[in-house]
Amino acid sequence: MKIFKLLIFVFSIVYHSHSQTTIQWKEQHPGIWKAIVGKPEKITLLSAANAKPNLNALSNLPKTSFPLDKPDIKVQVIDHKTYLRFPLEKEEQIFGLGLNFQTVNQRGRILNLHVDHYGGKDNGRTHAPVPFYVSSKGYGVLIDVARYITVYAGTAIRTDAKHPPVLRDRNTDKQWEAQPYSDAIEILIPAEGANIYVFGGPTPMNVVQRYNLMNGGGYLPPKWGLGFTQRVPTLYSQDDILKEVQSFEEHHFPLDFIGVEPGWHSMAYPCTFEWDKSRFPDPKGFLQTLAQKGISANLWLNPFVSPVGSLYPKIKPYTGSHTVWNGIVPDFTMPQARQLFKDHFMKHHLSIGVGGYKIDEVDGFDSWLWPDVATFPSGTTAEQMRQTYGLMVQNMTGSWYKEINKRTYGLVRASNAGASNFPYVIYNDYYSHKDFITALVNSSFIGVLWTPEVRASKTAEEWVRRMQSVCFSPMAMLNAWADGTKPWSFPEVEQAVNDVANLRMQLLPYLYSTFAQYHFEGKPPFRAMNLVEGFGFKSTTEAGTFDATANPYAMTIKKDIKDQYMMGDFVLVAPMFAGETSRDVYLPQGKWYDFYTGKLVGENQIIKVTPALDKIPLFVKDGGIIPMIPVRQRAPKASETLPLTVRHYGTAPNSLQLYDDDGTSFDYEKGQYSFTKLAVTKTTDGKLRGEIATPPTGKPFGYTKEIKWEFMTSPTN
Amino acid sequence: MKIFKLLIFVFSIVYHSHSQTTIQWKEQHPGIWKAIVGKPEKITLLSAANAKPNLNALSNLPKTSFPLDKPDIKVQVIDHKTYLRFPLEKEEQIFGLGLNFQTVNQRGRILNLHVDHYGGKDNGRTHAPVPFYVSSKGYGVLIDVARYITVYAGTAIRTDAKHPPVLRDRNTDKQWEAQPYSDAIEILIPAEGANIYVFGGPTPMNVVQRYNLMNGGGYLPPKWGLGFTQRVPTLYSQDDILKEVQSFEEHHFPLDFIGVEPGWHSMAYPCTFEWDKSRFPDPKGFLQTLAQKGISANLWLNPFVSPVGSLYPKIKPYTGSHTVWNGIVPDFTMPQARQLFKDHFMKHHLSIGVGGYKIDEVDGFDSWLWPDVATFPSGTTAEQMRQTYGLMVQNMTGSWYKEINKRTYGLVRASNAGASNFPYVIYNDYYSHKDFITALVNSSFIGVLWTPEVRASKTAEEWVRRMQSVCFSPMAMLNAWADGTKPWSFPEVEQAVNDVANLRMQLLPYLYSTFAQYHFEGKPPFRAMNLVEGFGFKSTTEAGTFDATANPYAMTIKKDIKDQYMMGDFVLVAPMFAGETSRDVYLPQGKWYDFYTGKLVGENQIIKVTPALDKIPLFVKDGGIIPMIPVRQRAPKASETLPLTVRHYGTAPNSLQLYDDDGTSFDYEKGQYSFTKLAVTKTTDGKLRGEIATPPTGKPFGYTKEIKWEFMTSPTN
Repeated sequence: MKIFKLLIFVFSIVYHSHSQTTIQWKEQHPGIWKAIVGKPEKITLLSAANAKPNLNALSNLPKTSFPLDKPDIKVQVIDHKTYLRFPLEKEEQIFGLGLNFQTVNQRGRILNLHVDHYGGKDNGRTHAPVPFYVSSKGYGVLIDVARYITVYAGTAIRTDAKHPPVLRDRNTDKQWEAQPYSDAIEILIPAEGANIYVFGGPTPMNVVQRYNLMNGGGYLPPKWGLGFTQRVPTLYSQDDILKEVQSFEEHHFPLDFIGVEPGWHSMAYPCTFEWDKSRFPDPKGFLQTLAQKGISANLWLNPFVSPVGSLYPKIKPYTGSHTVWNGIVPDFTMPQARQLFKDHFMKHHLSIGVGGYKIDEVDGFDSWLWPDVATFPSGTTAEQMRQTYGLMVQNMTGSWYKEINKRTYGLVRASNAGASNFPYVIYNDYYSHKDFITALVNSSFIGVLWTPEVRASKTAEEWVRRMQSVCFSPMAMLNAWADGTKPWSFPEVEQAVNDVANLRMQLLPYLYSTFAQYHFEGKPPFRAMNLVEGFGFKSTTEAGTFDATANPYAMTIKKDIKDQYMMGDFVLVAPMFAGETSRDVYLPQGKWYDFYTGKLVGENQIIKVTPALDKIPLFVKDGGIIPMIPVRQRAPKASETLPLTVRHYGTAPNSLQLYDDDGTSFDYEKGQYSFTKLAVTKTTDGKLRGEIATPPTGKPFGYTKEIKWEFMTSPTN
Repeated sequence: MKIFKLLIFVFSIVYHSHSQTTIQWKEQHPGIWKAIVGKPEKITLLSAANAKPNLNALSNLPKTSFPLDKPDIKVQVIDHKTYLRFPLEKEEQIFGLGLNFQTVNQRGRILNLHVDHYGGKDNGRTHAPVPFYVSSKGYGVLIDVARYITVYAGTAIRTDAKHPPVLRDRNTDKQWEAQPYSDAIEILIPAEGANIYVFGGPTPMNVVQRYNLMNGGGYLPPKWGLGFTQRVPTLYSQDDILKEVQSFEEHHFPLDFIGVEPGWHSMAYPCTFEWDKSRFPDPKGFLQTLAQKGISANLWLNPFVSPVGSLYPKIKPYTGSHTVWNGIVPDFTMPQARQLFKDHFMKHHLSIGVGGYKIDEVDGFDSWLWPDVATFPSGTTAEQMRQTYGLMVQNMTGSWYKEINKRTYGLVRASNAGASNFPYVIYNDYYSHKDFITALVNSSFIGVLWTPEVRASKTAEEWVRRMQSVCFSPMAMLNAWADGTKPWSFPEVEQAVNDVANLRMQLLPYLYSTFAQYHFEGKPPFRAMNLVEGFGFKSTTEAGTFDATANPYAMTIKKDIKDQYMMGDFVLVAPMFAGETSRDVYLPQGKWYDFYTGKLVGENQIIKVTPALDKIPLFVKDGGIIPMIPVRQRAPKASETLPLTVRHYGTAPNSLQLYDDDGTSFDYEKGQYSFTKLAVTKTTDGKLRGEIATPPTGKPFGYTKEIKWEFMTSPTN
């Protein structure tokens, strides 16, 4: 027995020291440290995304030092898996960890990050389960692994915790907590190693900027991508679509691109990626007719190849062991598969003017996608493939457009880390309006874009409220694939819907400059309040109500601000939801003004607003400068020169960098763009004055030099 | 380029042959074949359960040969994981794969078998995620691995499938299916090997019998375990409990054991396993007083050890890296941990007469249990620990009672493969009455017991309907820990509730013999209809209704019979649910009779019944023989001799083996039991006659020799 105890003791020492490793951190880019832990795999998220860092922009960010105590970061490799631990401080909030739909602060949650259709719970299964988190303390962590990793974001408690929770007796102590305090994030990586990145701040926004800039900076859409888009019913023919365009014109409704659904394929589910001759007898002519009207076409697809198409026999050797809807699954880690797709798509689509794609069903559900026991000819595992497929299709299709020097802007249903520079917006089949807004909030932490697309509505009220939200998102889209709705489907709110679509068109100069910020500085165009300086809200915890079935442990509830966000530096958007006539808006520090009237509404406080049905609540920060153009049905074309009205809100002097370029090509990467400093200053008599402080640097510049200044709050000389 | 293609070709050959193994099958027991695939791990489900097969009973089952085409079973070890494939035939149904709550036929589902609290979806996360399936074709498969395995039960489709699905164009073909036909079950085991068992039939019931007998045969509860049990509110003192017993006596309501909730601990959540002196000043005297009234006490616990208890310093070296509710987690794979628990529990509980345990929270939720990055001193991984913890606590506590030769019968919230012989019934916090019945149906495939416990109800109707169901389940329990309800809490249905509890007590001889079948023959006491011969129902598929949000792929719906079951060989139970005044009952082949009236109700058909509120629909098979005793408040004690009434239903001669023993000890394992053949024969004039065809073999036999025969259908001489 004594010998046995000794053996256990010895074993226990071996076990406790077992693979515990010192982590070597190397500053990879300014404020970004990388550590190689264990044996990282060849296929990772960043390797699949293949983004190039914007070194210049990174070097312009504030200097910062390693943001954590290095010895508090622990790693062990056990059982072919990597166990990671990062410290957490009291009050620290954790943002990111995938495209969540219901919660913002992830502290206290467990997430199994797994590419999937969102299933109604923030459990890690989502369209972009990006393994990146941003701390409210101003640092970030990225785990670059193409595996289903599990993150215990402040739930697990070690017996040797530095800051252990208080011991309480549930029998008698009302303060007993179902989830005691945890001072660490722990991460299970089911692989024998990983590349880990730590991002410095000092602010959460700086962290996000570094992340986005490391991944190439945010994508700058073509101008038409920021206009309105309509997706037509599945079996619409080219004639049906041209009629649809005509009826948009008749209704004076903006339309920049049109989504062509599965019926354009000669077979879809699985797909041929070849035009159906009965519905599209003349694809080239059809696309030319659209182009003459200034409209681009976006083609729906999923990448599972039909046996009846010409691509099938060629690509068969480079596909996986399992079918999806009877289609074979290309192994896009193989150059041959990518080349065959490129040849096919260039020939059938890009060469005749197709403007982009909607890439569906690369996320899940499990029931249709390849199983985790699928094998692929490259040796890439099914799990790696699942986590990276969305990245690879974005990267591949995006590169074709880059090659022909034409910007695209499309839709994708799966993404992951490294996607900031991809020309895609995420969407899904889920349809909670409130959750759609929370997803928009969360998209800003993880370098992806999200659209709260409109499909159907039960009432005119819901319709207009959804239309208002989508017009303040990365893609203003009505997706009528299933039911053929039009923006004017509820005649009683047609004007209100038209108003908000028109407002989006007027705001294009502001929105385009905001996207330029995303590209050149890494600041997300649509932003969580938590990325805004002066946003003092701390997520609070409410006592849970005991219920023997629904809440037997009386779990507490975390309160978040998850239904409002910023569009760019100046505009706070607080969408309304059907059934609600008023709402709270949390205003950060500094004065805030009503967008429509210019009136002061408050500062650093919660206000209640009761907007009319035809208005989405919008607020502008003191000193906000909003460049606008007249109402129009198409986004500006490269050759146009437009009159500019610039609004100013509040009383503070300020400036805005108005960005412009040709709006369609990648020539801006070669310097073909302009930044124009629009400044409002105070004259000696205390009045405000607007001017072009710095004339356009570079070109093109698509605006007339005479600017109409509108001082919304302070009338001036 | 050509060289590159050659390399790919060579690689592709290597990859396709990669670890593909021939499986060696060995007949381990009659009709049970075992294969060792790859390198199985040391800790498995069966090793944790540690059951001994009943070789004698196994040899009595019908001879059978290996039920599948061996070459159709495939295995590969890739990426430290084992990929398995088993063939499926058309029309084949798959049962089991864990304690599912909403579906019976698992074909077409994907399950990640993971011990957890049931979360409202049949996705594999459940209290007993047993990796065992039973085919309607009469064979079974068990994967003995303590890992989170994923089962694609007829969803994955290989490009080289023998029976590929039909190719369809979703654009134009209305027969297009979201989930095309798959001819295989595929399984991902995240370990480098596994022990795999294939069970022969020929019938599904034979498969289940083999499975249960391999695991020691089903557990035979003490007689008192089949009586009624009440669980009292958390902070009840010993005096409160004695008053509770008194009020049961006043209401003439059966009561055999009483559940003592967390307040008996001096601290609970985490637990001390030591009596609280203020609420329980004299535990021994309290238990003796209960025993004098013929009542047993069952103590609630979870196994997470409180720092303030005497067990803590001793067991600390044998606990894991993480706490659960501030308690340390014993590593029960270590003999030291088990011994320390045994010493503590023997001293404080078993030695003074504690009758059993309710072992809570060994399942999940993830938020409170140890994380998957926890480590344990034995080297057992957190995942293995999660999958086996419920097995280990059942095995450990059960063995203590065996050692003192006293049967116990308790509650546990996690189990897994190998549990047939454990003295525990599974329960949870979920509370859908219908789903509780489906769980009861599914428990019969996987060697576990389940109770649809009653807690609260919104209406008297719901109350009586739930009480009726629980009285036709393995444990007739009212769990009032949270709200202090009593069986008579709805006075308007007190009589109806009393009636069904009394009926259960009357049926104890039948029920006990049914459990004896479970033990000696492996037949589950409560059975899915799919285990009944002559049950011709084939699960059908209904076209799904398209909905762009809720069902965008128009998924079909599988129809199951999941709300009725058999209690033993003869009684079909069709529970009623609140809000419903009638229901369909599917009757298998052979004539069926109303339990209450003896009238013929039909055969091989669906009937509609509209029972009164005070009756749970019960039907008896033609020739059904039901031994009953008079109404009583306690289950029979060892010393009693009771009058017996034996009912016969229908017109067929038949017989039943009436089992008896002392009802409390394990002496039956040494032959101290009796089987008495009760037979009904047809006399020469065609009338029915009942007799003891074979007098009791062995003893004890706790009934008078004079039997009152009741021919419920056919009046006779």
